[in-house]
Amino acid sequence: MSQRALSVSRMTGNRSTFADWYQAVVREADMAEPSPVRGAMVIKPWGYGVWEEMQRDLDRRIKETGHQNAYFPLFIPLSFIAKEAEHVEGFAKEMAVVTHHRLKNIDGKLQPDPEAKLEEPYIVRPTSETIIGDAFSRWIKSHRDLPVLLNQWANVVRWEMRPRLFLRTTEFLWQEGHTAHASQKEAVEETMRMLDVYRAFAEDTLAMPVIPGEKPANERFPGAVATYSIEAMMQDGKALQAGTSHYLGTHFSEAQNIRFQDDAGELSYCHTTSWGLSTRMVGGVIMSHGDDDGLRLPPAVAPRQVVIVPMLRDKPEDAQVLEFAEALVTALRGQRCFDERVRVLLDTRAQKSADKRWNWVRRGAPIIVEIGARDAASGTVTFMRRDVLRDGDKIRSHALPRDEFVAKVPGILAEMQKGLFEEAKKRTHANIRTDIGSWDALAEYFGAAGDDENVEFKGWVRAPWSKPEGAELEAIDARLKTLKLTLRNAPADQPKSVGPCLFTGKPGVEEVLISRAY
Amino acid sequence: MSQRALSVSRMTGNRSTFADWYQAVVREADMAEPSPVRGAMVIKPWGYGVWEEMQRDLDRRIKETGHQNAYFPLFIPLSFIAKEAEHVEGFAKEMAVVTHHRLKNIDGKLQPDPEAKLEEPYIVRPTSETIIGDAFSRWIKSHRDLPVLLNQWANVVRWEMRPRLFLRTTEFLWQEGHTAHASQKEAVEETMRMLDVYRAFAEDTLAMPVIPGEKPANERFPGAVATYSIEAMMQDGKALQAGTSHYLGTHFSEAQNIRFQDDAGELSYCHTTSWGLSTRMVGGVIMSHGDDDGLRLPPAVAPRQVVIVPMLRDKPEDAQVLEFAEALVTALRGQRCFDERVRVLLDTRAQKSADKRWNWVRRGAPIIVEIGARDAASGTVTFMRRDVLRDGDKIRSHALPRDEFVAKVPGILAEMQKGLFEEAKKRTHANIRTDIGSWDALAEYFGAAGDDENVEFKGWVRAPWSKPEGAELEAIDARLKTLKLTLRNAPADQPKSVGPCLFTGKPGVEEVLISRAY
Repeated sequence: MSQRALSVSRMTGNRSTFADWYQAVVREADMAEPSPVRGAMVIKPWGYGVWEEMQRDLDRRIKETGHQNAYFPLFIPLSFIAKEAEHVEGFAKEMAVVTHHRLKNIDGKLQPDPEAKLEEPYIVRPTSETIIGDAFSRWIKSHRDLPVLLNQWANVVRWEMRPRLFLRTTEFLWQEGHTAHASQKEAVEETMRMLDVYRAFAEDTLAMPVIPGEKPANERFPGAVATYSIEAMMQDGKALQAGTSHYLGTHFSEAQNIRFQDDAGELSYCHTTSWGLSTRMVGGVIMSHGDDDGLRLPPAVAPRQVVIVPMLRDKPEDAQVLEFAEALVTALRGQRCFDERVRVLLDTRAQKSADKRWNWVRRGAPIIVEIGARDAASGTVTFMRRDVLRDGDKIRSHALPRDEFVAKVPGILAEMQKGLFEEAKKRTHANIRTDIGSWDALAEYFGAAGDDENVEFKGWVRAPWSKPEGAELEAIDARLKTLKLTLRNAPADQPKSVGPCLFTGKPGVEEVLISRAY
Repeated sequence: MSQRALSVSRMTGNRSTFADWYQAVVREADMAEPSPVRGAMVIKPWGYGVWEEMQRDLDRRIKETGHQNAYFPLFIPLSFIAKEAEHVEGFAKEMAVVTHHRLKNIDGKLQPDPEAKLEEPYIVRPTSETIIGDAFSRWIKSHRDLPVLLNQWANVVRWEMRPRLFLRTTEFLWQEGHTAHASQKEAVEETMRMLDVYRAFAEDTLAMPVIPGEKPANERFPGAVATYSIEAMMQDGKALQAGTSHYLGTHFSEAQNIRFQDDAGELSYCHTTSWGLSTRMVGGVIMSHGDDDGLRLPPAVAPRQVVIVPMLRDKPEDAQVLEFAEALVTALRGQRCFDERVRVLLDTRAQKSADKRWNWVRRGAPIIVEIGARDAASGTVTFMRRDVLRDGDKIRSHALPRDEFVAKVPGILAEMQKGLFEEAKKRTHANIRTDIGSWDALAEYFGAAGDDENVEFKGWVRAPWSKPEGAELEAIDARLKTLKLTLRNAPADQPKSVGPCLFTGKPGVEEVLISRAY
């Protein structure tokens, strides 16, 4: 079969069809689908399975760095949101508002009961700084109570007018960390520690190379003193902000009276942080590793790492095939990879085995085994590796004696994890241009604005800038918008000295990343 | 120390102070606290840790029975709720209604933006039958697509006027299973299978004996053909409905057009089920196992099974104490209990060690170790068992050579798990009366109605009934209410023949449980 498993490829001729391809993968890999609720998605079992593996791994990392999980209310009283001025500016435009607590049948039509109108409306949390800050103000009295290191796994709602599955949805799932500290130094250290946890999670678990750095002032979280992000390059050259960590200074503490008594009995405001990573990452995995046959999952987050498809023909040999397959499942479950048991599935659904094979190719299962009567008789395992599925157009198939296959599976999965990372890293580094030094060169490289932003693959530009704030930054941002560009972050890894600012010509203070973005 | 670790006991004289005691345990064991959102709670790390252990165990059981997790939207369009008549009747009175999607600053006051009013209001899910049924109607075409076996971990909202932490809260966390089948037989089997999963989870993991059975018609889930529950007796004799499983027949399928084509090409409605278990179970664990010193956690759901408190005195010996404690942590983590590594914590918080000890007693950590300089020098481990904390009023302390202690820990934890279950089971069975055969006897046993329902411990009554429905059942229910009693369930385990109905005098058809309840 030389045809691809998807009907849309990432490029059609020299035209990018990446957006259509993305939609096709999400659909054909059974990851998610739109729902009847505007902008909200249904996450299907295979997509949710990937999220569960992500959760498990990230939760371990969060706990290993001393944090505990807790749970705070979904609803936030309207007055809480209003407390921190920048915060309300940043979020007020996109929140779901609960105004009634009962429905009533009036004139044969079910509607909000006017007698059950809330005195104060509730907001469905877009993020939880204010409701968690309220608890902090009750819990924290003395320096002995610090630091408070909490994390919450939750759903949040931010109204989206242009939703896109996983990438921008009205409701999404995430974790949000919230911590309080006695000093700026500790809080900044925490902010950077969690940024590095995100970096390690993205790179080691999702095989997704990222560049950590500080966001420019105009891209800060509403109410933050400094916002840091990890940015990943997708296969169409656009950037995905894949996790953010904020140092909030004493802004929220002052708004919510989060104070502690120090050794000397003096009252001081706490320094707080917050950091979050969401189901958007599932979209990032798709856009980092997918190919024209569908998804390719890094084995560390594949809900099933080995899928076995028995080729059954309603013949007496079927019993032998199933027996061989079941013994193989048992043997594989005895193997460990990434410090856990290998995750195996025997797919016995009542479908044609060829359909099942292609379904698993599209879903991106790392190793797909097909067992026929001849394999069972000879004790051979025939399999495909999803990372290197084809040789030119032809499917590449491998065969190994059963015991050798079982012994080699952990190694193959580990190699695949590494290979996907190296491939994405090479692509990322090869596509960051550092030789663009002026607005004109920038405009020429990215081309004029227009609907055809996807015409050609463009990576990122890394250039010196003078790090302006206020009106000067706003002007730069506005001009970048006309080129459909944004400032991503100033990478943590900076050269000793930099040239003049690409935007202003003034002496540069650091390098910054410029690109199109999700 | 002969004083108790809590200020309130379960009984004061011969008067039950159970409700106050419950509140004190929730607070003093750092489980949860009220929030500024009416009826919603903040689940604190220790309480959430217990829920995480429950989730992990129940999730495994749900997956082992062939279900997959998925995620559906938090919001439900109002029209969906209106589709199933009984369902809307049952839920319409207690739902949070989202009417706007933006806030606006009008005359200096932040309020819902009148221009951002939703055309159709959204309901915050009180349960997800309707939104999941909508997906089922799209996914299910043929008998080959069946069964669909899904589960969702989620938050739900049902407005509560008389909230009680964990037991009745406006927002709570739960899992809700939703399945679709080709036949009534399969759907009923699924309903009973999941009821038994709940029974096994409650008994084996929470050490909470339960009685599975069918709810009477008036207690059915809105829209269900049959509702089954597990009921547990709390230490004040009241019943806690601890998990429910519903056979929904074709009610939701007909309302939402969930149909499949059978072998012969005929279209039929699916038979569906749903089943749920919530954070209410945390309240159940507290009321099943707590004592006058606080919580006693079954080791299987204790976030930390062994807590080590080093007795530090700012002296040179401290180093030795810490070294000994750290080596003990490492040795204990090498041990396994309930098929997992033993969960150990070294509590190095800057507090007095006596305060820490009592904090862990109140929190119900199964084994509490205190290490002083003498223990470190002699290689001895001195510990308390939370299940048998006292000998009379005195604290009972144990000492073992270090290696012997390490080797014995898994056995002690397993013994504790079994002991808590046996204790609760004995209490439950000793307090179900089967000798009450008339309204008068029932009224005499439970006493007249009044505010003093807590005056004396009363268990349950198990009696034959004629299983009426409609008006006759309503009359019985109303009369039971005057005694503050409810029908709990008709236990699955029934005798071959039963006497006359306690309520009607007609021939009985089965036995039913009657009690006060949460």
